[in-house]
Amino acid sequence: MTLDPVLARIDENLDAATERLLDLLRIPSISTDPAYKADCDRAADWLVEDLKSIGFEASKRATPGHPMVVAHSGGDGPRILFYGHYDVQPVDPLDLWDNDPFDPQIQDTAKGKVIRGRGSSDDKGQLMTFVEACRSWKDIHGTLPANITIFFEGEEESGSPSLTPFMRDNAEELTADIALICDTGLYGEHTPAIITQLRGLLGEEITITGPNKDLHSGMYGGIAMNPARVLAKIIASLHDEDGRITVPNFYDGVPELSNELAAAWDDLKFDEKDFLGSVGLSEPAGEKGRRPLEMIWSRPTCEVNGMTSGYTGDGFKTVLPSKASAKISFRLVGTQDPLKIREDFRKMVSAMIPADCSVTFSDHGAGPAGQMSTEDPAFSKAREALTDEFEKTAAYVGCGGSIPIAGYFKTILGMDAMLIGFGKDDDQIHSPNEKYDLSSFHKGTRSWARILHNLTN
Amino acid sequence: MTLDPVLARIDENLDAATERLLDLLRIPSISTDPAYKADCDRAADWLVEDLKSIGFEASKRATPGHPMVVAHSGGDGPRILFYGHYDVQPVDPLDLWDNDPFDPQIQDTAKGKVIRGRGSSDDKGQLMTFVEACRSWKDIHGTLPANITIFFEGEEESGSPSLTPFMRDNAEELTADIALICDTGLYGEHTPAIITQLRGLLGEEITITGPNKDLHSGMYGGIAMNPARVLAKIIASLHDEDGRITVPNFYDGVPELSNELAAAWDDLKFDEKDFLGSVGLSEPAGEKGRRPLEMIWSRPTCEVNGMTSGYTGDGFKTVLPSKASAKISFRLVGTQDPLKIREDFRKMVSAMIPADCSVTFSDHGAGPAGQMSTEDPAFSKAREALTDEFEKTAAYVGCGGSIPIAGYFKTILGMDAMLIGFGKDDDQIHSPNEKYDLSSFHKGTRSWARILHNLTN
Repeated sequence: MTLDPVLARIDENLDAATERLLDLLRIPSISTDPAYKADCDRAADWLVEDLKSIGFEASKRATPGHPMVVAHSGGDGPRILFYGHYDVQPVDPLDLWDNDPFDPQIQDTAKGKVIRGRGSSDDKGQLMTFVEACRSWKDIHGTLPANITIFFEGEEESGSPSLTPFMRDNAEELTADIALICDTGLYGEHTPAIITQLRGLLGEEITITGPNKDLHSGMYGGIAMNPARVLAKIIASLHDEDGRITVPNFYDGVPELSNELAAAWDDLKFDEKDFLGSVGLSEPAGEKGRRPLEMIWSRPTCEVNGMTSGYTGDGFKTVLPSKASAKISFRLVGTQDPLKIREDFRKMVSAMIPADCSVTFSDHGAGPAGQMSTEDPAFSKAREALTDEFEKTAAYVGCGGSIPIAGYFKTILGMDAMLIGFGKDDDQIHSPNEKYDLSSFHKGTRSWARILHNLTN
Repeated sequence: MTLDPVLARIDENLDAATERLLDLLRIPSISTDPAYKADCDRAADWLVEDLKSIGFEASKRATPGHPMVVAHSGGDGPRILFYGHYDVQPVDPLDLWDNDPFDPQIQDTAKGKVIRGRGSSDDKGQLMTFVEACRSWKDIHGTLPANITIFFEGEEESGSPSLTPFMRDNAEELTADIALICDTGLYGEHTPAIITQLRGLLGEEITITGPNKDLHSGMYGGIAMNPARVLAKIIASLHDEDGRITVPNFYDGVPELSNELAAAWDDLKFDEKDFLGSVGLSEPAGEKGRRPLEMIWSRPTCEVNGMTSGYTGDGFKTVLPSKASAKISFRLVGTQDPLKIREDFRKMVSAMIPADCSVTFSDHGAGPAGQMSTEDPAFSKAREALTDEFEKTAAYVGCGGSIPIAGYFKTILGMDAMLIGFGKDDDQIHSPNEKYDLSSFHKGTRSWARILHNLTN
């Protein structure tokens, strides 16, 4: 089936496609807030109807939380699963929005037209790029070039509690040759990107208890063990002078960057001054001797996400705290084993607890890193499609964050995933005044048509 | 003037004295809560009237806050200033009180009769011991043995904002040969005590800023400086392996315990297992090679009173914090100079701030240690009086806390102070169900009569 008429059709359809997206954006499907439960349901209904209008066999599927939307095109060709999520982040603080977050607007900006509204970039605008690509393809050819399953979740912004049970219960129905995930962004402003590695995540919370209640620091200061000091010592010991993490065996399974990827990343000419400058920093503060991109994509980390002890209000209280706690997360790479690291971390911390103190640990999740096998020809085909659309070589990039869905597709359904998205760094996802560039929406739609074409030829 | 008839009169007066104290306790003079402003005023009026009834020339003296009560006996003999405070702590949580905190009761307990109610021990019961001693003395001899000034404050529980201005404005009127302060306790259950050294206090708050906003730890983790790590490193470095404080020059002015005091303190047979056991600890955790009593009375300390950074709520948020802060206090002894220590501390911390981080400091007060000169014969005279009353050698003790009034008497009015009180460790001051032993009230009153006698003979 020919591609060019499909691309032309996408161009013709752009205004109507934008109107449809605005319609979907008007539904305040905030998944984390029970007050919007009916709206989440309504968004799922809207998608089911829209997919049916393209000819998908679509249905809303109940879960203990918000419903899933599953749609099948049927037909011949490779089996492709497309994933996105229709739920959105909360909108507070509302007073920082220039417009009603659920009254989306097309706005002119110095950088071009944008679609402004909650969910425009994360993830309604992105998931509609694929839907619109399918619509135009169907318009032109009467059928799709692949056996496509669309899988939309409504709980991505609230921890996805129903996701893995649903995947397990419907494994056969959802399994495909490859999964496409559209919830990420371009590299920089203009370079299309396929994420080929995602860092894993291990979350730990440690609470150290010394005295059985907060003490008066005049009465007990100098004789009683202060758990805040113990905690500080532990945190201070987690990195050595070179910024390496000191948990025993931590670097087991951390691969060196391949020469090929090192060269490719160098080609990206990552501007760390700019990246750091935007948040008020100037110098890479990670492991000594590593490229800045390695620090955020391919090296593991250990960060304190929060810590608290004693009196933290205004003014001063001379209390000697009973407890001190910290939330600590590790970003993992390669084949680092999160459960083994948890064990080694807890052992290391426990060994640092002095007499009269005790420690408890809370588990805040553990997921391994994701490493896509770019040898799969789908990757080079998708890369070529993106390169053609953006007239700029698409990059294989890493992602410092952790996108668990890619791992689930691998571990539960046994399929690789390609993470391709069209968001930009300035989209303000999760923040007030979220937007999605109209060009991201348009080029994203065209990109999926090209990718479908390449994957099926 | 003879003592024995005065003591006998105190015994006879006990019931009436107790009734008077209950009257005073019924006035809810909570100084920190503006809702009780009129009650504080009423407590001052009550005291003025009571002191007038004994023959003092007493008056309520306005301040920008709650009034002072100043009373003069006139007459011959040494000039003695007596200090106490008529304001009390708030009473919440009210549901933990067995009785209305302002409906005081005499209760039988396993350890004897107690006066239960807010302020019974801190400090209305204590200040009335001196007033009742004067009353009985006057009853018997028609005059007092010294030229006594009574000075009651109504803002001790709310930071004493009017205290030093009032002392400066009325320096001549308030200056005496010696000051007596009744706001402390016995040593243990039965040993009378005179505090001869008080630790000073330096309060500092440090805030370290890294990135200019909280970052996503996936996106920036590994490349951006985390201020929580910086703070932990600073806190961890404040003590060495032996528990000594590492701030440069910190130990300048820290005296060694005299052999005499060391022997006296050893005689007190301080039970650190018991002291620590009551708060769930078992081992002294202070400076190596120091007596437990040194750790809390005569050695300086550095404690973290509070610290906070990043996300501290329930669950987990993979934030890389913009800021980390800690409240840190130093208890000071001997002639340690709080301002010099502040300077050295800030210099030391500033030198540990890495590139891309900044630090700000907030000042939360600085007061030197108080060291009484026990060579003043008043001390041995008072000690003898207390020993006679309690039939147990009175102890010269230290106090780990900081009682600024003693320092003010020295620095503003140039007079030494003796801190003598009859509270007990289980009085629950500042807590629900505050009490004062009836025996403390009775023996306290008798003690002041004996002290007045000894000081004037």
